[in-house]
Amino acid sequence: MKSFNEIIQLISSEIDQINWSKEPHKLYEPIGYVLSMGGKRIRPALTLMACNLFQDNVQPAVNAALGLEIFHNFSLLHDDIMDRAEVRRGKPTVHKKWDDNTAILTGDVMQIAAYQFIAKTPIQYLKPVLDLFSQTATEICEGQQYDVDFERRENVKEEDYLEMIRLKTAVLLGCALKIGAWIGDATDEDAQLLYDFGINIGLAFQLKDDLLDVYGDETTFGKKIGGDILCNKKTLLLIHALRLAKGNEALELQKWIGTSDKNLSKDKIQAITSLYNRLGIKTICEDKMRYFYTKAIANLEKVSVSGNKKQELRNLADKLMFRND
Amino acid sequence: MKSFNEIIQLISSEIDQINWSKEPHKLYEPIGYVLSMGGKRIRPALTLMACNLFQDNVQPAVNAALGLEIFHNFSLLHDDIMDRAEVRRGKPTVHKKWDDNTAILTGDVMQIAAYQFIAKTPIQYLKPVLDLFSQTATEICEGQQYDVDFERRENVKEEDYLEMIRLKTAVLLGCALKIGAWIGDATDEDAQLLYDFGINIGLAFQLKDDLLDVYGDETTFGKKIGGDILCNKKTLLLIHALRLAKGNEALELQKWIGTSDKNLSKDKIQAITSLYNRLGIKTICEDKMRYFYTKAIANLEKVSVSGNKKQELRNLADKLMFRND
Repeated sequence: MKSFNEIIQLISSEIDQINWSKEPHKLYEPIGYVLSMGGKRIRPALTLMACNLFQDNVQPAVNAALGLEIFHNFSLLHDDIMDRAEVRRGKPTVHKKWDDNTAILTGDVMQIAAYQFIAKTPIQYLKPVLDLFSQTATEICEGQQYDVDFERRENVKEEDYLEMIRLKTAVLLGCALKIGAWIGDATDEDAQLLYDFGINIGLAFQLKDDLLDVYGDETTFGKKIGGDILCNKKTLLLIHALRLAKGNEALELQKWIGTSDKNLSKDKIQAITSLYNRLGIKTICEDKMRYFYTKAIANLEKVSVSGNKKQELRNLADKLMFRND
Repeated sequence: MKSFNEIIQLISSEIDQINWSKEPHKLYEPIGYVLSMGGKRIRPALTLMACNLFQDNVQPAVNAALGLEIFHNFSLLHDDIMDRAEVRRGKPTVHKKWDDNTAILTGDVMQIAAYQFIAKTPIQYLKPVLDLFSQTATEICEGQQYDVDFERRENVKEEDYLEMIRLKTAVLLGCALKIGAWIGDATDEDAQLLYDFGINIGLAFQLKDDLLDVYGDETTFGKKIGGDILCNKKTLLLIHALRLAKGNEALELQKWIGTSDKNLSKDKIQAITSLYNRLGIKTICEDKMRYFYTKAIANLEKVSVSGNKKQELRNLADKLMFRND
């Protein structure tokens, strides 16, 4: 069994070994830039950890793990263009550092590179791995589209939001785990349990992210606090606030939603956070987060390997839930 | 043996049967829009025709053929964003009819859809087909990047330009043919000959396109004549004009290249076309086009099937060379 740290080291060293110093320079340089920024490497870690539950040798799963990490970074890159985000992991986004066209084309070639790594999966697992990967990649695009649609849609319900984050965030965690399990020669039942574990952890993870956006500490979170509030993003927090605010509080919420004056940013964040507090929104979202976390742990418990082998995945789940960044 | 028309009908009917009426609507609707616009369907036709050289049943190659057509349309869609093109096949481009973000995300999901069709290739051919497809897709991105780079680069030579169009245009024709040949159980030698046929036809095809941009008939060409001239695109025509123009002609050429006043568009097209004529540029490019065409036909001749089976591919090559649109 490899420890989480060993897994992360293995992934980092594999990522560092990929050569992006190729021509045309302007196409490949941003890939090296994006991948060297780091990030948590959760997805490739999940693939190798899932594989490692069933066999000692995780090497056969390394290429698929790299493919998933490259795909994840590709999707962030294109999302950042669409969201006009200027900073990612504390550094300028690709479309800011270069330009939109570079970000589009570099993203396209990253998506292909992801498939090239996936295609190096041992041939006996290739077809199901490839199909699950394509299905997941499609779902992530669907999730992104719903995310965009929701910006302009009134009356987004909790179930709509949860389905959106399932597609946009959770399925890739499930996919990473299932692919690792398959390559580790797990039964389909265990692979599916790990997929479900990934979905539920993914949902909890995104709810944690939404909570951190409001209640996090700027110095550790790495993003500006209140970003979701400023752009009126329909997170679970805002959805429940819109549902629960009545009378004057409803009017106050609508007033702040209608406020885009940058000079009032601080006030807007403060006012909406205070409203969330009065309405008990934090508790509602934390409860929901814990609900998915508990479901995830129950999925993991059922996987038919000994409890001590699952400890690293349990630790990772805890780390993702109780993180500050 | 199927005739070219039968092949095209088969492809059209298969494309029409794909269901893009899925949710989220805004993600999938533009795919139906783009694919229903038509286009020549040359790439899927080449796949099925190559397969048909070696076996009667082209059905096993249909999914790969569709994947290539979807990929081709994806790459046009993203290129159109980058080039700020407003019209494609006489209709508004996706980023004009919808917006940039829709065009980016729809393109991303099209690229995945292309892989999903490719993945339906009979399993015994899947790995090499997948690898060639990914390599080709990567090369197309590289070609697009060189195309962008050349806009700002002085001193682009003929060989640079030919390498750029090989990557951007020719490799997908070669890939389409080779995949069809493989699925038709051709020998590697025949598959490679067909790949080379595709490369050479692709180079000739692009040179024909460049010539049509200057010497075509607007009513049949479907694009505005002189588009390349107006944006100073470094086609083979301009590359040779820059090389051959001396003294006053060089000054005149530089003057017009420096002119971006839209009121002078007609004058610019006329002046540069007249300069091309005086410098004998048309003949140089036509000779080059014929050189690749001849090489292509020689490749095709060597493929080890009877001459009459190759007639449809020969006809298609002729059609592409002597077309007006």
